[in-house]
Amino acid sequence: MNNFTSVDDVQNPQELIKQVLEIKQNKPHTTLGKNKTLGLIFFNPSLRTRLSTQKAGTNVGMDVIVMNINADSWNIEFEDGAVMDGSTQEHIKDAVQVISGYCDIMGVRTFANLQDPDEDYKEKVLSEFVEHSSVPLISLESATLHPLQSLTDMATITEFGIKRPKVVLSWAPHPKKLPQAVANSFLEWIVKTDAETILTHPEGYELNEKFTKNISIVNNQVEALKEADFVYTKNWSSYAHYGQTPEVKENWTITEDKMNLTNEGKFMHCLPIRRNVVATDEVIEKSLVYQQAKNREYAAQAVIQNILEEL
Amino acid sequence: MNNFTSVDDVQNPQELIKQVLEIKQNKPHTTLGKNKTLGLIFFNPSLRTRLSTQKAGTNVGMDVIVMNINADSWNIEFEDGAVMDGSTQEHIKDAVQVISGYCDIMGVRTFANLQDPDEDYKEKVLSEFVEHSSVPLISLESATLHPLQSLTDMATITEFGIKRPKVVLSWAPHPKKLPQAVANSFLEWIVKTDAETILTHPEGYELNEKFTKNISIVNNQVEALKEADFVYTKNWSSYAHYGQTPEVKENWTITEDKMNLTNEGKFMHCLPIRRNVVATDEVIEKSLVYQQAKNREYAAQAVIQNILEEL
Amino acid sequence: MNNFTSVDDVQNPQELIKQVLEIKQNKPHTTLGKNKTLGLIFFNPSLRTRLSTQKAGTNVGMDVIVMNINADSWNIEFEDGAVMDGSTQEHIKDAVQVISGYCDIMGVRTFANLQDPDEDYKEKVLSEFVEHSSVPLISLESATLHPLQSLTDMATITEFGIKRPKVVLSWAPHPKKLPQAVANSFLEWIVKTDAETILTHPEGYELNEKFTKNISIVNNQVEALKEADFVYTKNWSSYAHYGQTPEVKENWTITEDKMNLTNEGKFMHCLPIRRNVVATDEVIEKSLVYQQAKNREYAAQAVIQNILEEL
Repeated sequence: MNNFTSVDDVQNPQELIKQVLEIKQNKPHTTLGKNKTLGLIFFNPSLRTRLSTQKAGTNVGMDVIVMNINADSWNIEFEDGAVMDGSTQEHIKDAVQVISGYCDIMGVRTFANLQDPDEDYKEKVLSEFVEHSSVPLISLESATLHPLQSLTDMATITEFGIKRPKVVLSWAPHPKKLPQAVANSFLEWIVKTDAETILTHPEGYELNEKFTKNISIVNNQVEALKEADFVYTKNWSSYAHYGQTPEVKENWTITEDKMNLTNEGKFMHCLPIRRNVVATDEVIEKSLVYQQAKNREYAAQAVIQNILEEL
Repeated sequence: MNNFTSVDDVQNPQELIKQVLEIKQNKPHTTLGKNKTLGLIFFNPSLRTRLSTQKAGTNVGMDVIVMNINADSWNIEFEDGAVMDGSTQEHIKDAVQVISGYCDIMGVRTFANLQDPDEDYKEKVLSEFVEHSSVPLISLESATLHPLQSLTDMATITEFGIKRPKVVLSWAPHPKKLPQAVANSFLEWIVKTDAETILTHPEGYELNEKFTKNISIVNNQVEALKEADFVYTKNWSSYAHYGQTPEVKENWTITEDKMNLTNEGKFMHCLPIRRNVVATDEVIEKSLVYQQAKNREYAAQAVIQNILEEL
Repeated sequence: MNNFTSVDDVQNPQELIKQVLEIKQNKPHTTLGKNKTLGLIFFNPSLRTRLSTQKAGTNVGMDVIVMNINADSWNIEFEDGAVMDGSTQEHIKDAVQVISGYCDIMGVRTFANLQDPDEDYKEKVLSEFVEHSSVPLISLESATLHPLQSLTDMATITEFGIKRPKVVLSWAPHPKKLPQAVANSFLEWIVKTDAETILTHPEGYELNEKFTKNISIVNNQVEALKEADFVYTKNWSSYAHYGQTPEVKENWTITEDKMNLTNEGKFMHCLPIRRNVVATDEVIEKSLVYQQAKNREYAAQAVIQNILEEL
């Protein structure tokens, strides 16, 4: 594996998922990454991703350097050919080439602006990193995808060993407008596994068709949840009315009553979660959310190991 | 030792103080913590505590991860059952369970709000960490206690080998209103050692009785200082008029003249110190403040080693 | 080597430059710094310097601790004898003694205020670090010098093996007023090598004579560039009209047409660079800027190794 920015970078996703679970079982501390540097660049704040990836790096013996880049304080120029006589201080192509020069693997978290779907879905910032980096790149979440989260989620589902599980991805309410990255990414990974997948969301919250073309969509949440083995919940803003949050009349919060419709289904969420908005306390207490968070470490380690082996 | 949040977590404080001084003498670099992670979480900024604890962790071979959490940028929900549709993004119980999942030992610095004594003295934030953490917890200062500082101070006093020293804890002026944590903690540790302890402060600055019940209190600073072997100085705001700073007419700054009343007494302060407000330059130059700061490293190392040995 | 704050701290600059290039060739990962701590203190934000020095430290086996000190959040008192009853929280002499107590080598980036040349050129902040540190000190750029950058630049020039190269240091336009540190430092290092050096800048942008007394100065940029082997470009504000930026009528941007006047000269810049202001995209694409950035790591490693060997 050279880069890890979407499922398309992975030759055999099922094999990678298996490796995550092997790492979880054996917790190997290797020296594979000795004298090698993992640089983690965050344009957006991060808790889980930073901690789990930093830990994964040290697990394989790497030196890990974290850079938090406050978009306000370090003004990056993204336009080719710009005359930089204003507030931007460094061109993205210079920054990436310089940083990657000090690293053996680089991770980067970029962000969606939720203004212009073309810009976000072209992955403007991540693409610059891929193009100008001299070393392999790991996405720590980008404008439209979050592959480390999805790999984690697949491993968590696989851990239960259910043959062709019914997996429901359900939209949930949220006070803020959020990107579609986690949902998009979940869908492009789940179709690589043997699962029956249902997507449920209110009208107006359709995702980009690229990710839903082979997915059953049900607008009635209660209908969708029936007999589910896993209920993956996430808020996202509208793709069609890009970045908007059209009003939703029904209550989409996941409750115990709704979970009772499932096949003793497990509730999943990538965290952080708005309690009693996305799901009730009771649902969260019985959920897989901490197991997912812990699996982030093993997913990151599997990715790093794969990249190191091919350096 | 499982947690280290107050002297009550320590079975044998005298033995622990001895261990601090042994570590100082031998400066062992061990591999006791190899492949283990120390996570240090700061809600409040820190210089000494962060550096000394990070160094202590690496001294025993641990990987150390530091998270500075700006209370403004990462809005934590503390109320059980809250409907999180406002500005809080993550519930403390989720955050703590997730973070501790990546650590083998966790350190946390919390803070006093100085508004509501009940909330502070119940250690609302620290208690959530203790309750929800899956790994041992070290307080890096909490709302009402600072045990790593106190352990350091006891070791520093013990280093001088004075039999039953006279130790004076004196209030000092300060332009800001500060918590009572360092003073409270000093008192609960000093009573575990063989010392004659005098507490001196202006009227109105009484500490919580829980910490002063076996301590001699003298409101005349000059009287208190006579024949002291150690003069530990610190500002705190009022406990009775919680968080207030009633006016003080006399000058409580520690001067050379005052130090001349002591038994060649040593001046101590936890730093940072407001020079020529808490004490004059001359007093600070001859003081133990740098020795104390340096001993922070050995105190943290002793605590970490004790916890690692029982993991 | 004890401290590294200017070329004057280096007994044999040519030898040190040679060591940088040997490290670049052999990329040794040593255990010279095992169980030793490198503390890097930044009063000003840093990308290249932080990453390259942190990497250099880990290359020699040191534990590296980074402290970003936001001048706003951690108010330092610089005046001797100050009565600290205002906004300053800690005296520089206390901070430095404490921090250095946890380190074996300390690096610090300070800054120019560009208000008062005396204060800047006395290196008020750096001097406090030198005076109060208990361990060797590396300047990560100071008010008036940037020796790690200059050592890097000398090594980059030396790499080309040109006998007595013609090196032109040219002023360039910039939308902000910048310090003279990089230019001053470049000049005090280049005179220690065997080079023909020309300094070119608009009238009003004369540097401090201390650095230019043996340097040829040409105010006509086109004239200066002729037959140059290396064109080192940098903006600086006026020294005579301290910190001012008198208007410049000619266009001082480095273009391909100007580079065509040189002896296939190489364009150099310390980065970050304002593209199409300091130099055009075309000039930068063919330049040595990424090679310089990468050499920062080896320069820092050479300095750290020299200091470690004499600890």
